[in-house]
Amino acid sequence: MIRAAIIGATGYTGAELMRILLLHPEATLEVATSQSSCTERVTDHYPALHGLCDLRFEENIPESIARRIDVVFLALPHGEAMEAAIAYHQLGVRVIDLSADFRIDDAGAYRNIYGKDHLAPQLLRQKVYGLSEINRTAIAASSLVANPGCYPTCTLLSVAPLAQKGLLCNPVIVDAKSGVSGAGKKPGPRTHFVEINEGFSPYGVGTHRHQPEITQEMDKLGTLQSDVIFTPHLLPLSRGMLTTTYLGLQPGTTVEQVVTAYEQFCQHEPFVYFLGLDRFPSVRDVRGSNNCFIGIHIDIAHQRAIVIAAIDNLMKGASGQAVQNMNIMFGLPEDCGLKGMLQVL
Amino acid sequence: MIRAAIIGATGYTGAELMRILLLHPEATLEVATSQSSCTERVTDHYPALHGLCDLRFEENIPESIARRIDVVFLALPHGEAMEAAIAYHQLGVRVIDLSADFRIDDAGAYRNIYGKDHLAPQLLRQKVYGLSEINRTAIAASSLVANPGCYPTCTLLSVAPLAQKGLLCNPVIVDAKSGVSGAGKKPGPRTHFVEINEGFSPYGVGTHRHQPEITQEMDKLGTLQSDVIFTPHLLPLSRGMLTTTYLGLQPGTTVEQVVTAYEQFCQHEPFVYFLGLDRFPSVRDVRGSNNCFIGIHIDIAHQRAIVIAAIDNLMKGASGQAVQNMNIMFGLPEDCGLKGMLQVL
Amino acid sequence: MIRAAIIGATGYTGAELMRILLLHPEATLEVATSQSSCTERVTDHYPALHGLCDLRFEENIPESIARRIDVVFLALPHGEAMEAAIAYHQLGVRVIDLSADFRIDDAGAYRNIYGKDHLAPQLLRQKVYGLSEINRTAIAASSLVANPGCYPTCTLLSVAPLAQKGLLCNPVIVDAKSGVSGAGKKPGPRTHFVEINEGFSPYGVGTHRHQPEITQEMDKLGTLQSDVIFTPHLLPLSRGMLTTTYLGLQPGTTVEQVVTAYEQFCQHEPFVYFLGLDRFPSVRDVRGSNNCFIGIHIDIAHQRAIVIAAIDNLMKGASGQAVQNMNIMFGLPEDCGLKGMLQVL
Amino acid sequence: MIRAAIIGATGYTGAELMRILLLHPEATLEVATSQSSCTERVTDHYPALHGLCDLRFEENIPESIARRIDVVFLALPHGEAMEAAIAYHQLGVRVIDLSADFRIDDAGAYRNIYGKDHLAPQLLRQKVYGLSEINRTAIAASSLVANPGCYPTCTLLSVAPLAQKGLLCNPVIVDAKSGVSGAGKKPGPRTHFVEINEGFSPYGVGTHRHQPEITQEMDKLGTLQSDVIFTPHLLPLSRGMLTTTYLGLQPGTTVEQVVTAYEQFCQHEPFVYFLGLDRFPSVRDVRGSNNCFIGIHIDIAHQRAIVIAAIDNLMKGASGQAVQNMNIMFGLPEDCGLKGMLQVL
Repeated sequence: MIRAAIIGATGYTGAELMRILLLHPEATLEVATSQSSCTERVTDHYPALHGLCDLRFEENIPESIARRIDVVFLALPHGEAMEAAIAYHQLGVRVIDLSADFRIDDAGAYRNIYGKDHLAPQLLRQKVYGLSEINRTAIAASSLVANPGCYPTCTLLSVAPLAQKGLLCNPVIVDAKSGVSGAGKKPGPRTHFVEINEGFSPYGVGTHRHQPEITQEMDKLGTLQSDVIFTPHLLPLSRGMLTTTYLGLQPGTTVEQVVTAYEQFCQHEPFVYFLGLDRFPSVRDVRGSNNCFIGIHIDIAHQRAIVIAAIDNLMKGASGQAVQNMNIMFGLPEDCGLKGMLQVL
Repeated sequence: MIRAAIIGATGYTGAELMRILLLHPEATLEVATSQSSCTERVTDHYPALHGLCDLRFEENIPESIARRIDVVFLALPHGEAMEAAIAYHQLGVRVIDLSADFRIDDAGAYRNIYGKDHLAPQLLRQKVYGLSEINRTAIAASSLVANPGCYPTCTLLSVAPLAQKGLLCNPVIVDAKSGVSGAGKKPGPRTHFVEINEGFSPYGVGTHRHQPEITQEMDKLGTLQSDVIFTPHLLPLSRGMLTTTYLGLQPGTTVEQVVTAYEQFCQHEPFVYFLGLDRFPSVRDVRGSNNCFIGIHIDIAHQRAIVIAAIDNLMKGASGQAVQNMNIMFGLPEDCGLKGMLQVL
Repeated sequence: MIRAAIIGATGYTGAELMRILLLHPEATLEVATSQSSCTERVTDHYPALHGLCDLRFEENIPESIARRIDVVFLALPHGEAMEAAIAYHQLGVRVIDLSADFRIDDAGAYRNIYGKDHLAPQLLRQKVYGLSEINRTAIAASSLVANPGCYPTCTLLSVAPLAQKGLLCNPVIVDAKSGVSGAGKKPGPRTHFVEINEGFSPYGVGTHRHQPEITQEMDKLGTLQSDVIFTPHLLPLSRGMLTTTYLGLQPGTTVEQVVTAYEQFCQHEPFVYFLGLDRFPSVRDVRGSNNCFIGIHIDIAHQRAIVIAAIDNLMKGASGQAVQNMNIMFGLPEDCGLKGMLQVL
Repeated sequence: MIRAAIIGATGYTGAELMRILLLHPEATLEVATSQSSCTERVTDHYPALHGLCDLRFEENIPESIARRIDVVFLALPHGEAMEAAIAYHQLGVRVIDLSADFRIDDAGAYRNIYGKDHLAPQLLRQKVYGLSEINRTAIAASSLVANPGCYPTCTLLSVAPLAQKGLLCNPVIVDAKSGVSGAGKKPGPRTHFVEINEGFSPYGVGTHRHQPEITQEMDKLGTLQSDVIFTPHLLPLSRGMLTTTYLGLQPGTTVEQVVTAYEQFCQHEPFVYFLGLDRFPSVRDVRGSNNCFIGIHIDIAHQRAIVIAAIDNLMKGASGQAVQNMNIMFGLPEDCGLKGMLQVL
């Protein structure tokens, strides 16, 4: 049994990690920490876990916690995760960081985007970007995985089949829509029920922090230096993400080539499912699951396509993919403890 | 033209007051104050008012504001409104207080319920409780109106027709459900979208502050010393309130007597509408309007009835009734500036 | 492995049954029938099941299906289920009927309530009412289980601890609120998004078909001939049910007696959880799970109490309890295949 | 006073028209017809109109209705409106058709898109496309106005300022999101609460009927033969529409030119409001109003821009613009009866 800890377990990604790990057949949740709710029962915060969890939230003390665990999940805010990552990594614990602190390859770029000096530039180079479908070999051997952002996950899975085959053309326009849980549990004017309900609006147009992450990783998928336009919007629903990606195809590309690219990419993937030509997903189809559903529309005369992908922002977009990465790191089947996670309604 | 000021205009009841007063044919909104957003444009906070409102939020300085206005609406938190009420009242401005500070008749009871000493016990005795349908004569002559709470408004209108005729019997069980705007604009864990959405729960069971207000006013409606059980619940919607009231009828009461009581009560009311026997309202029917819709089910064999009433908690439950009271105080038709407020969808 | 069939699997309770049975460690879903979608893939209707289910919907032909299964779940409309129940029962298959066709003990009463002649009055007497916590011994031995309605389940679990101890007093007022999935998948004006969204209203006041079912079963819990007032309301959310029950206590009842009654009742129950005095559930706490959470408020001076219970109407209120009953019938632990069903968000 | 009739008044656009016309200071609603609800009271269908409307739905008999009115609004399904339009037009009544029947200029194209032969090709050529801001002079003189679709309205207002100045470049990618009321009142699987709630998905990708309407009218705005990619999505909310439009700028275009184009376009418009550079609307800002709010982001280095516009699909997207057109046709100020229509919450 893999012994796991979650640092920062009261937030939404932390809670979702608890749900998955408490039910995981090959892992046990040994520790859940929380600064604000230290010593309180987990079930007082998440009554739904009644009967599954007797833990109380602990303080994050790496020296003592490290001895009790094999892997640590960091569900801390950006900027705070770095320190914990360094500590646990030094203590020999495998680290899966759900924050953005290790996603950007370059320390200078990190400072520009997140406004902080990075505390461990050499760890930054060592980390593996945890997009499971793309980097599974490196993830298996890694001791520090930077779990991708939700928007980058959905976008990169949308374009990877084309980019890897050299069929992708610029610009890549990503019109993205996310549920509110992506904004975190901390109350604020932007997450007040009355402000969100019956509302819909863009945010971070041209400035969202996930844009450089998307560009950085998209550039590694093929030979194209990508030109990405990314516009996120906030949906009046709790969980779910859908991206509508408008992209060009290399001159001469055929419909068959495009379809084959997606079919081959998804063929052996446990979680990425290609719906086919002109069949499109709803965020409801993947709610509660680690799946990514993809559909495409091709305008071959104009050599362009629309790729529509849906994920659950808390699962494949965060906690589900984190556990998928744990499975990879510990030699388990990738869908271990994740297969039964789904909702039909 | 009545010149009006709103103190604390950035909150939900304040914003709703702005909407009504800006469109009111016999009133002008001269001043909107806000501590936190002082000097900012109203339309930066409420873009929907674009084209209707050039005001900037001001500081609340009674001495200078009083000279520019005839009436002041206090949309401040409980405890803060008292001071402003005293100041404006002394300066000769008519005051309509939307907080709870003047609703409770007895200063000792006020301290017990709201945990603060009342600053003006003699004003407390002078004020008129602003349930328009019940107290309109006193409101017309008053210089200080305590605008009722949303739950008391919906409950009292439900039972008044029976209580006034002496047909009401104890206990009176009020199962109440309210939309989230009733909890105010301040962000907190209880109003986070993800916590409310797809949720429903009771709160304040046996302890809600509106219970003594309901009891105090119900006792004045007839001769019954009322025994009220009141349970509020939070609905996953922005605005709307529905109360389901289970009550006894005096022995010998007939169906006709009950129906007649409601018909007579509502006959000349511009905003209270009796749907009839076994016809019931939805909160959607009154959304955006100052209306209260009432339906009843009678079990004459057991001498009991169920009264179901719906209001918009921000309108008849707060800002709409406040303007109705202003209309009464200034000799205007009660529905002036309120008649066209409604949504069909 | 228990081999199961679902008759009428395209509806919401059918779909939820598919989800549970496909993941159940001791059961396999052999057959899913649908009249309207015969021969179509299950995953075309419920894409979320992709990767878990290769079945196509079949026609309901009892003679051939009976040979392939051990148990059949009937997720058919009231009136249609009878016929299928008779057929499968005769063919020696254990039947769990999620419709109302076998819930009412008396054929005459059934006709009055559902407007149809019952086709098998003697089976009606033979059936067991499948409220697992109350009738588990009889369920274990039964070949035909009438799965309870969602409202009766939530209500009966609320009052059973008191009724069984003889502490309950009339009247019992049940103010019930349900999510929209309880109204079924068939589109109609009452389930249109625009009519439900931002809405809340009562329905079936004094006339709902679950009232006689509640009364019939409540009478069996103790010695009280119960006097039930039941008012259902429709919540603007997909799944979840909460009942607020106002009831009297026998003269002389103490707070300790009430608390003890609930504690003892829940002590060994896998799914019913007593939150304690003045702690109350939200429907979010039980979403996706087979749990029932109960909290109470006691007014001992007046010898009355408020009991608030929450269930997921599709789980403990329908499909979850049906599988719990299957577990009982086949000698499995009651929470087999149900324990991991839960959502924290 | 303008005497108006609404043909097909029970649907959502019909109901919204009733609300506006009943409150309009220069118009009276004389007739509201409904095939299915003939002779029933309007307020039985829309209780919110209680106190404002004593009408009963009538049968649509042009010969007799025409004598009582000056203008008729057709809120009928596509294909049914044609006949009514022809009849009322012949009887000398001014016609505002909210269906698609007169939007497409060419009868052959109409047949291709809507699958029906057009009954009055010569009227098709005579009609004026009722995008008020673009065609107001022609609308004023017209006896038959084809009220634009909601998506075309939002899109055309987004690009018109650039197109008219010759600054627009292909392709124009319109990622559009609409509330559910746009799908009409008729219940179906696509509008069931449970299917929409917590959901989000595209539909009609590459095939939506509004695409040719958009292209046809965009071509008239400037000299560009437009290449439009249009992808609509369904939002889980009742009313509101937002379009995110990605477009190119003619080589050499400056930021100032773009900003000036929008400022000049909006300067004297009563309903179209330019928020400025990098300020974006929410659908909540325009809910219930006839406004269109527009914000833009410019990437001048790449000579491209993102234009984000929000309207209420039932107001500026349908009934509001229809009344704006009536105002134009009858020489009233354009915002007559529309100015006070707004919600702040």
